[in-house]
Amino acid sequence: MRDDILNPYRIWDLLITVCATLAAVYIPVQLVLGLHEQAAMAYVDWVITLFFVADMLVHLRRPVTVKGQVIDSPTVLARRYMKGWFVVDLLAAIPFGLLSGATLLQLLRLAKLARVVHLLRQWRQREIQNATLLRLIFFVYWLGLIAHWLACGWLALRGMPEDIDKWTSYLRALYWCITTLATVGYGDITPTTNIQMVYAMVVMLLGVAIYGYVIGNVANLLANIDLAKAHYLASLERLSTFMRYRNIPLRLQRRIYDYYAYLWENRLGYDESTVLAELPISLRTEVSLVLKREFIEKVPFFKGASQELIRDIALELRPVVFTPGDYIFKAGEIGRHMYFISRGTVEVISADGKALFATLRDGDFFGEIALLFSQPRSASIRAVDYCDLYALGKETFERILTHYPDFAMHMQEVARGRQEPRQ
Amino acid sequence: MRDDILNPYRIWDLLITVCATLAAVYIPVQLVLGLHEQAAMAYVDWVITLFFVADMLVHLRRPVTVKGQVIDSPTVLARRYMKGWFVVDLLAAIPFGLLSGATLLQLLRLAKLARVVHLLRQWRQREIQNATLLRLIFFVYWLGLIAHWLACGWLALRGMPEDIDKWTSYLRALYWCITTLATVGYGDITPTTNIQMVYAMVVMLLGVAIYGYVIGNVANLLANIDLAKAHYLASLERLSTFMRYRNIPLRLQRRIYDYYAYLWENRLGYDESTVLAELPISLRTEVSLVLKREFIEKVPFFKGASQELIRDIALELRPVVFTPGDYIFKAGEIGRHMYFISRGTVEVISADGKALFATLRDGDFFGEIALLFSQPRSASIRAVDYCDLYALGKETFERILTHYPDFAMHMQEVARGRQEPRQ
Amino acid sequence: MRDDILNPYRIWDLLITVCATLAAVYIPVQLVLGLHEQAAMAYVDWVITLFFVADMLVHLRRPVTVKGQVIDSPTVLARRYMKGWFVVDLLAAIPFGLLSGATLLQLLRLAKLARVVHLLRQWRQREIQNATLLRLIFFVYWLGLIAHWLACGWLALRGMPEDIDKWTSYLRALYWCITTLATVGYGDITPTTNIQMVYAMVVMLLGVAIYGYVIGNVANLLANIDLAKAHYLASLERLSTFMRYRNIPLRLQRRIYDYYAYLWENRLGYDESTVLAELPISLRTEVSLVLKREFIEKVPFFKGASQELIRDIALELRPVVFTPGDYIFKAGEIGRHMYFISRGTVEVISADGKALFATLRDGDFFGEIALLFSQPRSASIRAVDYCDLYALGKETFERILTHYPDFAMHMQEVARGRQEPRQ
Amino acid sequence: MRDDILNPYRIWDLLITVCATLAAVYIPVQLVLGLHEQAAMAYVDWVITLFFVADMLVHLRRPVTVKGQVIDSPTVLARRYMKGWFVVDLLAAIPFGLLSGATLLQLLRLAKLARVVHLLRQWRQREIQNATLLRLIFFVYWLGLIAHWLACGWLALRGMPEDIDKWTSYLRALYWCITTLATVGYGDITPTTNIQMVYAMVVMLLGVAIYGYVIGNVANLLANIDLAKAHYLASLERLSTFMRYRNIPLRLQRRIYDYYAYLWENRLGYDESTVLAELPISLRTEVSLVLKREFIEKVPFFKGASQELIRDIALELRPVVFTPGDYIFKAGEIGRHMYFISRGTVEVISADGKALFATLRDGDFFGEIALLFSQPRSASIRAVDYCDLYALGKETFERILTHYPDFAMHMQEVARGRQEPRQ
Repeated sequence: MRDDILNPYRIWDLLITVCATLAAVYIPVQLVLGLHEQAAMAYVDWVITLFFVADMLVHLRRPVTVKGQVIDSPTVLARRYMKGWFVVDLLAAIPFGLLSGATLLQLLRLAKLARVVHLLRQWRQREIQNATLLRLIFFVYWLGLIAHWLACGWLALRGMPEDIDKWTSYLRALYWCITTLATVGYGDITPTTNIQMVYAMVVMLLGVAIYGYVIGNVANLLANIDLAKAHYLASLERLSTFMRYRNIPLRLQRRIYDYYAYLWENRLGYDESTVLAELPISLRTEVSLVLKREFIEKVPFFKGASQELIRDIALELRPVVFTPGDYIFKAGEIGRHMYFISRGTVEVISADGKALFATLRDGDFFGEIALLFSQPRSASIRAVDYCDLYALGKETFERILTHYPDFAMHMQEVARGRQEPRQ
Repeated sequence: MRDDILNPYRIWDLLITVCATLAAVYIPVQLVLGLHEQAAMAYVDWVITLFFVADMLVHLRRPVTVKGQVIDSPTVLARRYMKGWFVVDLLAAIPFGLLSGATLLQLLRLAKLARVVHLLRQWRQREIQNATLLRLIFFVYWLGLIAHWLACGWLALRGMPEDIDKWTSYLRALYWCITTLATVGYGDITPTTNIQMVYAMVVMLLGVAIYGYVIGNVANLLANIDLAKAHYLASLERLSTFMRYRNIPLRLQRRIYDYYAYLWENRLGYDESTVLAELPISLRTEVSLVLKREFIEKVPFFKGASQELIRDIALELRPVVFTPGDYIFKAGEIGRHMYFISRGTVEVISADGKALFATLRDGDFFGEIALLFSQPRSASIRAVDYCDLYALGKETFERILTHYPDFAMHMQEVARGRQEPRQ
Repeated sequence: MRDDILNPYRIWDLLITVCATLAAVYIPVQLVLGLHEQAAMAYVDWVITLFFVADMLVHLRRPVTVKGQVIDSPTVLARRYMKGWFVVDLLAAIPFGLLSGATLLQLLRLAKLARVVHLLRQWRQREIQNATLLRLIFFVYWLGLIAHWLACGWLALRGMPEDIDKWTSYLRALYWCITTLATVGYGDITPTTNIQMVYAMVVMLLGVAIYGYVIGNVANLLANIDLAKAHYLASLERLSTFMRYRNIPLRLQRRIYDYYAYLWENRLGYDESTVLAELPISLRTEVSLVLKREFIEKVPFFKGASQELIRDIALELRPVVFTPGDYIFKAGEIGRHMYFISRGTVEVISADGKALFATLRDGDFFGEIALLFSQPRSASIRAVDYCDLYALGKETFERILTHYPDFAMHMQEVARGRQEPRQ
Repeated sequence: MRDDILNPYRIWDLLITVCATLAAVYIPVQLVLGLHEQAAMAYVDWVITLFFVADMLVHLRRPVTVKGQVIDSPTVLARRYMKGWFVVDLLAAIPFGLLSGATLLQLLRLAKLARVVHLLRQWRQREIQNATLLRLIFFVYWLGLIAHWLACGWLALRGMPEDIDKWTSYLRALYWCITTLATVGYGDITPTTNIQMVYAMVVMLLGVAIYGYVIGNVANLLANIDLAKAHYLASLERLSTFMRYRNIPLRLQRRIYDYYAYLWENRLGYDESTVLAELPISLRTEVSLVLKREFIEKVPFFKGASQELIRDIALELRPVVFTPGDYIFKAGEIGRHMYFISRGTVEVISADGKALFATLRDGDFFGEIALLFSQPRSASIRAVDYCDLYALGKETFERILTHYPDFAMHMQEVARGRQEPRQ
């Protein structure tokens, strides 16, 4: 079912929707304005009847999916159809207008709209990402139809004046209808008889309901657009209340606000771990490998690690962010993590901060000795701009190694062979 | 209290609601249009009086539930009633109209509506699942009554013109009222005296409040319908931002979107663990057993396990989802979990991916050797379609076994007896 | 500041609010309708002037709270006042009307409304629980004032017709204003000159903004009322989707729905742990002691436990709910918890379910042997109705005991003395 | 890009926005009212043309930031410009009005508004904190333009009556337009021809959409303002339901409500840990150091601790709140934490509560012996007012010390040297 948009059944559904809409528009007009003698009308009627009959045949053959199972046996399909949509489709397919002239029976053909409702619902189900947009489009569609029907009803109640042509009569009825539904109510056309007053009241109440629906939908749409932002702003507000209450120095406040701005511009305020946590393990693994495999395989002493080990490490790398000027670590501290640079630039500097040893960029790594030995860092690392790093903790690494005894032994050899530690 | 809908007290409540509504409608009309001489009115009055008196007797006997305790002692009930609803019910039960003709005292009978308010509130409390729908229905009910009263008030202020009949007068007043409340304001009927102007202003302000209430409710209703979807879409948006930012390959993006679509279609985007976590332990256990007992009892070496052990295992099985084409595990990896297939199809294939050993379906299990030995998997398992599996981790299993020393010993024997591992 | 409502300063604030409102109402009317010659007006003017002058004196002495510090030194207060509200209060206190007759300078006295704004804001800050309600009340207050001012403005632009009295003129202006703000727009009074048209446009746009504000507030109010319910319904919907998807038997579904209904009716859907977790440790301890001390002190072998130990146990008791018919445990299982009955009834029954040994109620406890020995339960316990129990796990208890070595020794003795285990 | 507001490019953008707006306003007016002969119009036309041409030159040189990379090479910029905005800017820069008199071609110059859309969007992106406010401002801007255009369209359809001047004509058209958009609909100006009716219907429907947008935005704005409060109130409601259900004594309820009021007034209901948890480790460290370093360095036996150790301790201090009258601990309990007073006052009192040994205030600490020895507290500590303390647990402290073996040895010596414990 999750196939391309040019699926022939989809096109057929679209055609049927167009035909049903056409029927829903012209049948009431025909009845109210008395257009039966016109040849064009009969022609339209024939075409629609043809399509509706064809649709019945199509449904006898069209496979359906029920709880993930595709049903395509013709007999089962025919049985399902007979018990389900058959009556509706049959009613819609009978050309009452052609058989007996202008008759209210023609309105039975509007039953086909139930089919359109069904198709639109299926469509919205499929397009969950655009559900709110689709809801608005469908709403405009139904609103148009309803306004049209209400205008026809108004025309029927008012009767057709002699002095103006049919098209103007219809237009004035539609104009009254929109004026009332939109609650504008100029008052240039008002009901005069009791029955017209009742009709007008119904239209007004409908207008209120429609208004409520429009506004509720728009509010909802805006609220959903802003869900991420509302979340972000709530964080920000909390933070700024806290900082004011605790008198955090302005310089630090500025840095925190900058960090939040960075977070919002680059990631709508969410962090990688949260996002990945929602994926099932297999996809999480793949995404992790795509993001991190390259970094890991660059590290010399991971040469020879199995795919499984690299996968396990990739899953355990923890994203951390550093802001410009932050020290990732300082010379002399006992190292507990190694780091991979996913994005950003860091400087390797001497303990006194005077000498710049190296500048590392996207894809580089540092601090890997911490995984082998517990010893002081030999240099400081400072972030130059916003840095997205991945950290691998010593404990995590050792925990992973317990599942890979061969590689653990290999690591011990590496460690023995590098007693003169770097960095 | 949580009993069927045909409870006689419920039916009685419904009857009383109908009578009170009837009284609320006809009494103001009678007063304004001067319909006292009509026999039909007197008849209605008698019937309603009868019901209201009967209601007083019913309440003397009807048991009530207070904080989970049912009170049915007649003396206690009578005392409660005298201190509570008695005065209201009495006022409503006096047929002022029959006693003294058209009098404003009749309006006192509308006090019975307080009872209706109480009943409706109880009803909404009981039907929490339909609370918003019920709120809308009650709102329409009250709106109708208010519009009716406002129309009667307008009639009283305008006086009855000679040339039109009473029904048309009332209809025109109602029409004015709806036109104003709906903020349409055609302007074909406008206030002329000062007191009418003040009345019109009150109605207009009421209209604004009603509008606000309608729209607020609709917005709320839509927001609650969409709570699950909003949540889901927020996840999706976060994810797609993340994937764009980190340049995840399109093929993988496609798979992730497909997974999300599957999740939404099948489970509104929520996973089993979250749902079960909200249940109390006893129900969680039962649900787990319903879902998983069969799978567990199929495993040969769980034969002979006690019900308690199976229950503990069922509670600890973790649901995992695999997408089509995922490897659940590959030949050669050290196994750490066994799996039960809740739904879906997997293939057992050779290490090189060329030979298909078997196809496992709903209710099958695999990888059970991992619970006994730490040894490489002897074959790969690949998901054919979306698979809902349950995973049982080796550590979890061993933790559970500590509570069942007899079965633990049994397992060790099983292990010793199967030194040639399968799969 | 958190004192009773009859605080004299509060009453004074109320008086000043009334005076300022009075001034805001009568000054524009006086100017537009030309009522300066009336003695009543002069009298009102004198009273208000008096109050405003008195208010200035009051403020020189009234202590204020700044960041939790109360300031009551007269010199500091005077300095603060001079730098702050002095100018506003002075402007409002000058009786321009009495000094120079009808003059636009009188409008300067409306500056006192800034004070009202300040008072209302403080009030809302204090009454956070009723904040939304207060917002609506304040809104009605301001809306009334604005409508009054707009009506005065309209009167000033239209001029006073000769043939109708002043009060009717004002009423018609107010009527026009409400008709326009409420977007009803009958059209019986419409602008005729260009300046009136511009004025009408401003009022209409204001009407739209006010409408938006009313509706936004109502929607917000409804959403906040329903926050708990929305949460609850979301859980319920998730659950029912899950149960349908996984074909949970109807009988079990019924029980789960009943449980949810119980949860909602009794606790708005939230559980005790969540609520307590939000309290600071000291209050959490007190609440826990209130709820649980009695139960704990009833247990024979806790006799002699220190207050600290009982407190620690109370903090660690975990609330659990059982639904009618649930087995809390079954005879033969290894016991891992003891239970206290907070509310509900349980039955102690034999292993085969035939014999009823005892019925335990609110305040009773059972399964306490599990804290001392790891041995099978000697009887089954079944919930008769919804039971709120507290569970104390063996591990938790042992962890707590490590901090109380004396009591731990005492427990060992108790255990040695009871080798024949009960239940 | 995150630079000051006086950035010259920003000023230029502002100028161009003003010019484009000016063009969008005067061109339709010129066309409808036929103002081409007026010299002032030609002058305005020339100035705008000049600015638009200059803007094209500016864009050839202006550096742009793409995914964090600044592009300033003139050739690359020129190529990007030619492929992007060039056509739009060119259309807007041609002075059609000056070349060929009143012509509909002039409307092409409104293309420049696309540029304004782009600028406004960038601006909103940058000012995320004020996004909702900016959205409202932009909305008013666009609403003004649209109302202006609709009024011009109405004028074009109605034609210019002879008897009123151009300005009045325009004003009446605008008045009609606002009356209709605001759904007031006085009905003093109504469409007369068919085409005018269609136009009116379009304007009415637009009015409904605009209304929906206004109200949705206001509702959203209010909801976001209240996000923190809604959260807080939900907590409060849950709590009060719980307390009523469990019959918590009123005195304790009062204290709990007071605590919540304190929390709200001082911190909008959020606690420090939640806020800090959202910061990246580097900023969290800095904030922690700002808040806590002073306290820590005051403790005698932390003299000589390295910066890293103090940082680690600062990160691990847990904020706790005590309400007035709470005992932080009582004499005789085994101490497990030391405390720092961040804000508030506590009393050191004797075991029997009679003697007051000392009063400690902001910046003091107590209970530090608990970090060295497991022994009973020698005095009780009671909170005098609301106290924000930081607690350092013994276990936490010992865990930190494992990373600082030198300091751990130092601590043991301190402990040996202080066998007579204080407090």
